Amino acid sequence: MRQLRHRADHFTVLVRQVPLCPEHNTRACAVDHFFSKHHRFSYHSYQMLYDGKDLEYLLGKQKKLKKELEDKRRTDMLSNGSQEHKQISTSEEKLREITNMICHLQNGTMLREKELPVAFVTFKSRRSAALAAQTQQHSNPLELITEMAPEPRDVSWRNLAIPQKILPLNKIGVILAAALLTIFFAIPVTAVQGIAKYEKLKKWFPPAMVIEFIPGLSSVVTGYLPSAILKGFMYIIPFAMLGMAYLGGSISKSKEEIKACNMVFYFLMGNVFFLTLISGSLLDEIGEYLTHPRDIPSHLAAAVSAQGEFFMTYILTDGLSGFSLEILQLGLILFDIIRSYTYGRGKERTPYLFSFPYFRVIPTVSLSIMIGMIYAVVAPLMLPFLVGYFCLGYIVYFNQMEDVYETTYDTCGQFWPSIHHYIFVSIILMQITMVGLFGLKSKPSAAIATVPLILITIAYNEYCKIRFLPSFKHFPIQTAVEIDEEDEKNGEMEAHCVDAATAYNQHQPCLERVKISDESITNLSHPLLGTESI
Amino acid sequence: MRQLRHRADHFTVLVRQVPLCPEHNTRACAVDHFFSKHHRFSYHSYQMLYDGKDLEYLLGKQKKLKKELEDKRRTDMLSNGSQEHKQISTSEEKLREITNMICHLQNGTMLREKELPVAFVTFKSRRSAALAAQTQQHSNPLELITEMAPEPRDVSWRNLAIPQKILPLNKIGVILAAALLTIFFAIPVTAVQGIAKYEKLKKWFPPAMVIEFIPGLSSVVTGYLPSAILKGFMYIIPFAMLGMAYLGGSISKSKEEIKACNMVFYFLMGNVFFLTLISGSLLDEIGEYLTHPRDIPSHLAAAVSAQGEFFMTYILTDGLSGFSLEILQLGLILFDIIRSYTYGRGKERTPYLFSFPYFRVIPTVSLSIMIGMIYAVVAPLMLPFLVGYFCLGYIVYFNQMEDVYETTYDTCGQFWPSIHHYIFVSIILMQITMVGLFGLKSKPSAAIATVPLILITIAYNEYCKIRFLPSFKHFPIQTAVEIDEEDEKNGEMEAHCVDAATAYNQHQPCLERVKISDESITNLSHPLLGTESI
Repeated sequence: MRQLRHRADHFTVLVRQVPLCPEHNTRACAVDHFFSKHHRFSYHSYQMLYDGKDLEYLLGKQKKLKKELEDKRRTDMLSNGSQEHKQISTSEEKLREITNMICHLQNGTMLREKELPVAFVTFKSRRSAALAAQTQQHSNPLELITEMAPEPRDVSWRNLAIPQKILPLNKIGVILAAALLTIFFAIPVTAVQGIAKYEKLKKWFPPAMVIEFIPGLSSVVTGYLPSAILKGFMYIIPFAMLGMAYLGGSISKSKEEIKACNMVFYFLMGNVFFLTLISGSLLDEIGEYLTHPRDIPSHLAAAVSAQGEFFMTYILTDGLSGFSLEILQLGLILFDIIRSYTYGRGKERTPYLFSFPYFRVIPTVSLSIMIGMIYAVVAPLMLPFLVGYFCLGYIVYFNQMEDVYETTYDTCGQFWPSIHHYIFVSIILMQITMVGLFGLKSKPSAAIATVPLILITIAYNEYCKIRFLPSFKHFPIQTAVEIDEEDEKNGEMEAHCVDAATAYNQHQPCLERVKISDESITNLSHPLLGTESI
Repeated sequence: MRQLRHRADHFTVLVRQVPLCPEHNTRACAVDHFFSKHHRFSYHSYQMLYDGKDLEYLLGKQKKLKKELEDKRRTDMLSNGSQEHKQISTSEEKLREITNMICHLQNGTMLREKELPVAFVTFKSRRSAALAAQTQQHSNPLELITEMAPEPRDVSWRNLAIPQKILPLNKIGVILAAALLTIFFAIPVTAVQGIAKYEKLKKWFPPAMVIEFIPGLSSVVTGYLPSAILKGFMYIIPFAMLGMAYLGGSISKSKEEIKACNMVFYFLMGNVFFLTLISGSLLDEIGEYLTHPRDIPSHLAAAVSAQGEFFMTYILTDGLSGFSLEILQLGLILFDIIRSYTYGRGKERTPYLFSFPYFRVIPTVSLSIMIGMIYAVVAPLMLPFLVGYFCLGYIVYFNQMEDVYETTYDTCGQFWPSIHHYIFVSIILMQITMVGLFGLKSKPSAAIATVPLILITIAYNEYCKIRFLPSFKHFPIQTAVEIDEEDEKNGEMEAHCVDAATAYNQHQPCLERVKISDESITNLSHPLLGTESI
């Protein structure tokens, strides 16, 4: 705890559903009035959010123009034609115009009209921020809703602009969409697999006949094509889920990713684990489980025992191919190649760095844990393979974490409750399988003796929820005061507080500061006004 | 809101699971350290809770002795015998001894050993108390759990002594017991009804033959006995549920009563409403509903249509007999008569006043609302009867509230969420019945069109939960600051705060102050020491 470095979000509270101030008809005024009255000694400052679509468009245009101008200037230096000199000055005129427009729009009065009912309120101490974040401020619980602010670089600015009223619809929509995707995923995949049979391919796409002339390739294609199609679909799923989670209106990117992580886990559980075990479709199976809940254990045990070898192969291939794909970053290479040959053709390549894809890696690894858990009872021989899998995974991801991916925000261990939940689901499934297995082996007393184990597991999970989950949701007063006191001792309190107040201002995309007289312009046309920059 | 008079609980927070202070090995010290450090400017004082079983026993004994002494003195005045004079002085000696013992035990050092991990912490303003009550204090969420304190006279002192660790078991136990009582209630009742047939009574209890000699009485007994037995059982149920709720470990009497109210409502719904509708036992019916959820609407609609007349009679008899019983207070009269002829025989009658039995009245009235809701569609003719019922009920309960019952604590509208929930359940049942009814009348399109209505009702209930329910759980900062400011204007803040701090001290039963030298004793034996009283 003592190693926690200074974080702006500890001082800041996100306030949603800010009402209009009846006197001055602005929301900014309402925030300031409310917090300076009700948190008189601890309130520091506030930062409103603005609907910045126009501004962001202009900022984007400005950047593009600047780049064009630079390019033109470079070619101008080489050719020195008067035609191009003219072009440059019109471009400069345009750029100046846009910059002025941006400055005009970023002006206080203009911004006031674009106010959103969302604000970041900064307090003078971590303690006061923690107190304000956890309490109900307004007598109407749907106004001035406070919560701990996410890190400035983690804030999902676009989602904060979604009106609070339609947020529940977004959430329900995303859950529904994810559930439908999970349940009906098998249908399009089998359809595509049916179409992509080699015989049919020959008929519709005659060039595919070439394959026949290379000896052996034909059998490889017929053998691996369906599996490759399935893998391809599977590879897209995490990104699709992340996109859906984005529409769910979470206030921060980390929460989006956690949501996507949960959806991908349930997807994998349904479409890799259960779909392998059962014969029919997922929907039929769910229906049968619901109507005959007593048959679940024996059904599960029989299916699990029958599919042991398949999952052993799965762990092996996923371990070897999955980790090597992770190192090769094949998906990124493919994406890059496709991009450079299609819409990105001829554009300058921008170097890219991505953050660690937790939403893809955690569910995959959790699925392996689940398979290991369940087969620990049915086929313990799978465990050595799993140990190998995890050791290899540790080495691979350690390398990737250190050298390949970039940190875009601090997860602060927020993924642990999800992982705990996946392990809990795995253990429950293992215990249900155990009950079924003892039933199949005609040991009813052993089966009955296992039932309390399930109840104890559920009780333990409930205990963990009240003992550990609150630590992930609230910032306890004790910890806040501890860090505050240390800061006060070092005399850094004031600086940290001011720092937090500016952080949210700087990160808001539409408030990005522009220089009125750009260096590169002034060099040519207004050399004496160069100091006017704000 | 402005009419809210001063309440001690607004300044006070109940703290549970207080850890031991490692230095001084007391919990009192830990509370004081924690709050004076983490709420430095707003913390006022604390009041520990003590395990006062011994003290309460002694206090009871003291009161009994005092009364005996007075009685003896009275007879002494009349008879003036020396024998009795001696008895009085030994009684006085005993009383003095006990009083000294109490004072010794109420002394600080002795109390420290009886400390419970529970404390009432008083703050200097309502705002600080509201902030502390709604936030997580300790980094371990299971230590120093804060919540808004109940009113001093509403605190359930005995329940606060239950260790937090076994509380979940208590809660689960009570819910299980209430569910079992609801489901299997019909079995003992039908058993007793079977035994209490007049023919059997004659055989086992020959004096019952007397009935035959009074013309007409025999038929009345045979006709009304089973119904009277059912009513008798029904009358006991609310008290049994209140007793069970008491074991559930709620921190206040009002919460116990709300819990009892909920349990009684579901009991009545199961054993008056559903048991009338169905043919078999409640358990069979629940099982059938769970296995064939699609049949519920048509099943319900058919049963409801068939039992219309029964419920009309029910509303009429319950309206006329129930309200007249309420006015006559027959239960209390019976209880009093039985008491005065059995264990209370010869004892002086203490006047008694009870608080309004919300846990009995609210569920009964809610059941009538439910019947009215459901029959509004099936048999609208029932509505005029219900209007009559409610008008009569209004007059009766208005009178009872004003003149008969005493207010033991302020409910503060805490029963409204429960009543809202009962009405919600009624509306949902009505709409399901509607679906079934349209299905029975072969109007499938109307039936399908009603389904969205159910979804909208559920969505509206969810909205109410987030819009109105928090107001019943938290004390919003805005309101707290408003009352605080008014108090500050009147200069009453300090007085109210001190008042709140002492209120919880005075109400704790084991800390009841006793006078060391009682007036009545000193008058006879130590006239000069009369001023020594503390």
